[in-house]
Amino acid sequence: MSSRRKLMAASGPAVARKASNGEFRRPPSGRRRRIDLGALDDRVGYFVRRLQVWIFQDFMRTLKSAQIRPAQYSVLTLIQANSGLSQSDVADTLGIERARLVRLLDELERRGLTARLPSTRDRRSHALFVTAEGRRALERIEVLVARHEAHVAERLGPAQRKTLLKLLKDFG
Amino acid sequence: MSSRRKLMAASGPAVARKASNGEFRRPPSGRRRRIDLGALDDRVGYFVRRLQVWIFQDFMRTLKSAQIRPAQYSVLTLIQANSGLSQSDVADTLGIERARLVRLLDELERRGLTARLPSTRDRRSHALFVTAEGRRALERIEVLVARHEAHVAERLGPAQRKTLLKLLKDFG
Repeated sequence: MSSRRKLMAASGPAVARKASNGEFRRPPSGRRRRIDLGALDDRVGYFVRRLQVWIFQDFMRTLKSAQIRPAQYSVLTLIQANSGLSQSDVADTLGIERARLVRLLDELERRGLTARLPSTRDRRSHALFVTAEGRRALERIEVLVARHEAHVAERLGPAQRKTLLKLLKDFG
Repeated sequence: MSSRRKLMAASGPAVARKASNGEFRRPPSGRRRRIDLGALDDRVGYFVRRLQVWIFQDFMRTLKSAQIRPAQYSVLTLIQANSGLSQSDVADTLGIERARLVRLLDELERRGLTARLPSTRDRRSHALFVTAEGRRALERIEVLVARHEAHVAERLGPAQRKTLLKLLKDFG
């Protein structure tokens, strides 16, 4: 792979660029300017961010009917897999700030998907549960999430998806 | 690799944690709750997000003295590599919303790092440039960004970083 990858983007109407003869002129309409990524071309963070944005958008599109966002899905799944988990554990495991998690749980609770019960041992703490309604919702959600994951596999190639997942897990 | 990875996290709600006043006792070190990721364990999006958060945090930490965020760095680098680029091209290439890009450019311009010049051909458009001061700043910034990238390589392993970068680039 070349050290500089050229990307095509729509040409800005006003962009003057150096023609091969050295004159600055506007490219004819319809022509697309080659954009040089410069140092970004060797930055993992830049490309991780691009993938993350694509995944987020595909998730939102694919899960539209379920009206659930990736962070809500993660919280719901984690609580379902670990009944009685504390808010601190959810926050620490998913790397979500406490205040944001509280808002997230308020919303899931308002929709009847999760419940916060007072802990029997520590009155300052809550134990989190997925309700029966939450479990039914999660079954439907999982069908859509599997479809979203299939889009990722289509886009990357199934073997590449596996390699990527393994690399990311080893990191994580 | 097992289909369910267990993560260790601070123990659940029933176990009181050590408070600064010493009133609550920390659980014995062996007593940590095993947290099951459930279906998240097979979701690329979940692990991409984790990596993205780690990278963002390391970038912010490593670039602290330069006071520059990843999005600002990307914009600065892209303009430097493509003098006279239009705002539309930057927005399209980096996948940044127009309104956010305008705020971002306002800030870079306020710091004297970039300039927007009116296009000679299209009065509604601007051509973007990195100033001499911006070029000097970017030189210092690149040293720190290289350090950040080295952290990613340390954490992943250099070969794995290469594989990851290739996979992510193929994704596009």
